[in-house]
Amino acid sequence: MALLFEKKEYLSRLERAKDRMEKAGLQALVVVDPANIYYLTGYDALSYYVVQAVIVALNEPEPIWVGRKMDINNAKFTAWLSPPNVLGWPEDMVQSRVKHPMTFIAEVIRQRGLGNKVIGLEMDADYFNPRSYEELKRNLPEARFEDARLLVSWLRAVKSPAELALMRKAGKIMEKVMQTAIDETEAGVRECDVAAAIMQAQIKGTKDYGGDYTSFPPLIMPGKKGSAPHLAWTDDRFEKETAISFELAACVKRYHSPMSRTVFLGKNPPQKMKETAEVTVAGLNAMLDFIRPGVSCEEVDQVWKRQVGGKVEKDSRTGYAMGIGYPPDWGEHTACFRAGDRTVLQPGMTYHVITGVWMDEGGFEVSEALEVTDKGCATFASFPRKLFTKG
Amino acid sequence: MALLFEKKEYLSRLERAKDRMEKAGLQALVVVDPANIYYLTGYDALSYYVVQAVIVALNEPEPIWVGRKMDINNAKFTAWLSPPNVLGWPEDMVQSRVKHPMTFIAEVIRQRGLGNKVIGLEMDADYFNPRSYEELKRNLPEARFEDARLLVSWLRAVKSPAELALMRKAGKIMEKVMQTAIDETEAGVRECDVAAAIMQAQIKGTKDYGGDYTSFPPLIMPGKKGSAPHLAWTDDRFEKETAISFELAACVKRYHSPMSRTVFLGKNPPQKMKETAEVTVAGLNAMLDFIRPGVSCEEVDQVWKRQVGGKVEKDSRTGYAMGIGYPPDWGEHTACFRAGDRTVLQPGMTYHVITGVWMDEGGFEVSEALEVTDKGCATFASFPRKLFTKG
Repeated sequence: MALLFEKKEYLSRLERAKDRMEKAGLQALVVVDPANIYYLTGYDALSYYVVQAVIVALNEPEPIWVGRKMDINNAKFTAWLSPPNVLGWPEDMVQSRVKHPMTFIAEVIRQRGLGNKVIGLEMDADYFNPRSYEELKRNLPEARFEDARLLVSWLRAVKSPAELALMRKAGKIMEKVMQTAIDETEAGVRECDVAAAIMQAQIKGTKDYGGDYTSFPPLIMPGKKGSAPHLAWTDDRFEKETAISFELAACVKRYHSPMSRTVFLGKNPPQKMKETAEVTVAGLNAMLDFIRPGVSCEEVDQVWKRQVGGKVEKDSRTGYAMGIGYPPDWGEHTACFRAGDRTVLQPGMTYHVITGVWMDEGGFEVSEALEVTDKGCATFASFPRKLFTKG
Repeated sequence: MALLFEKKEYLSRLERAKDRMEKAGLQALVVVDPANIYYLTGYDALSYYVVQAVIVALNEPEPIWVGRKMDINNAKFTAWLSPPNVLGWPEDMVQSRVKHPMTFIAEVIRQRGLGNKVIGLEMDADYFNPRSYEELKRNLPEARFEDARLLVSWLRAVKSPAELALMRKAGKIMEKVMQTAIDETEAGVRECDVAAAIMQAQIKGTKDYGGDYTSFPPLIMPGKKGSAPHLAWTDDRFEKETAISFELAACVKRYHSPMSRTVFLGKNPPQKMKETAEVTVAGLNAMLDFIRPGVSCEEVDQVWKRQVGGKVEKDSRTGYAMGIGYPPDWGEHTACFRAGDRTVLQPGMTYHVITGVWMDEGGFEVSEALEVTDKGCATFASFPRKLFTKG
């Protein structure tokens, strides 16, 4: 199988990782976040439910992938690593009560002469649990461990042209996905049937390319349940004269393009909802107009606050860096549009700008995924920003 | 929203948890595994991408849910807990570089008088990372922490009649899902289009009830890629004269019923594939005939080994306990059908019996989800066990 990116792109990612490691005083780094593993090596498989890690060492020309033995073949199909750097722990370590794969990974670290070095760990990565952490420490008593959380995640902030091309593809799928959601939502229809249509549209993609599973299932927030922003869909039927918010995404090769919109099932939404929608969309538009290289994340958030002027309340962040995602999240956990975040925007950075207002009687939500361009920003999808009405 | 199970069922689960805690010498338990949170409290939402926990204390009549403030409403809709036992950490702790939600959770533990007690932790739970662990330790210096991994997961092993009813519903959806997979798979069709149809069938469910998102996306293993068992689907088109294995599931209210089958795109599969299929199906059938209360997990695995008699090679386990699942897994990480596992089967236990053989030129896989009954076992779905052929 051909590599997704040119080998020199992977090598440049590796060089940047090593550069950061050197500055942080690390001789080695144990990467467990599947998005970071994918970024550095290309390895992409549904194997993150068992222990796997990539070891990056300053003195090794390639990262070393270590996972379940049966998953070695996944690496052959997706990663740029040469066979000596793809190693599998034995099958009897799978969810064993007595054996643990981290003992194997520790042994690999020792064999490469890194057992007594300063080793960075992704302390707040998903799929890295305290037992793995303790096993690693116990089996490498001479190593010194440092918290290297987000070291690789921050490298992902500025996307390459090849990465942006994938996110634009996801944006094109996203347009179809949101249109499907709006078309299928009617009073009397079950939430699950709309969810089914959304997921079909996500994966079917376009004639030219299909979609991948998103790292977060479709969020459908109908009527009063809109006040509970992370409930899964149910068999309930949509009701007339209620608003339904959709927080969705499309994904191509693990690169996401999310989008939120709200539809009201009736010709005449309540005045308050219309006003909320108007103010929120104006706030989002003001942020999109403002975003450009050189401004900071907190300045973008301030634009929202100034524009809405207390007319709608939202205490959560108004955006976050995103791109590659594995369950349960497509966010990069790095820069956010909120007070105190002084990250300066650069061309190629990608964000999900999300302005949502959840009220007790239902919510209104609208969002866009975008790239920072040389002079401003461009959304990955093109879809009207308004309160949709049906009926 | 009505509770999914009767309150007395939740209370009985809590009692059993406290009983185990007492035997393990624990005064409190911090539950982070979303499946265990759901089992004890009913709380079900897509909020596990941020820090959340349920505190169970011997001297508290209810568990205490602590999560992101905006997710409190999810608890109101799904959990049986009274409002004083549903607490939210403030929004500025979300993926912050300086603040951490575990400081808030530690404070709740202290306020309930548990700050100097023996506290169990789910050391190998997903969504419990080393940073959360360190923050908890640092903020509760007088507590003594013990590894309580799988304490709640083991309680889930024997399902109640109400739980089994949900798994049977999932089994009914599963029949439709597998039929869809086989119907849609043709030479020249893109893998993603079959994945789209599968996911639509999973969620659309039946006329009477819909399906939920599965904790693992559909696994489609075509031809040579069958040797790499956890690759995601691509835009590749299926080819004539190849075998495609499907490892799928259906889910109702987080309760899963998985199933695997293999289809060959041609009238005459190679002799070796036919033989492999025959031996594997016979091995699976022998296990199903054998499974009954009183036998042990390793005895079930031995039946497989005896039946296939070295004719096919499989070094991975032949089954595992399953039920409630959140990404990335529907397995319970407890009992497995493999050498050394002496767990004794009881009525109401539920397993995924999976017999798959991955060869370099492609795989053959067949599996069933089942409940142990009073005298034997019953599969949740009814679907022919054979190598399907098309063409």
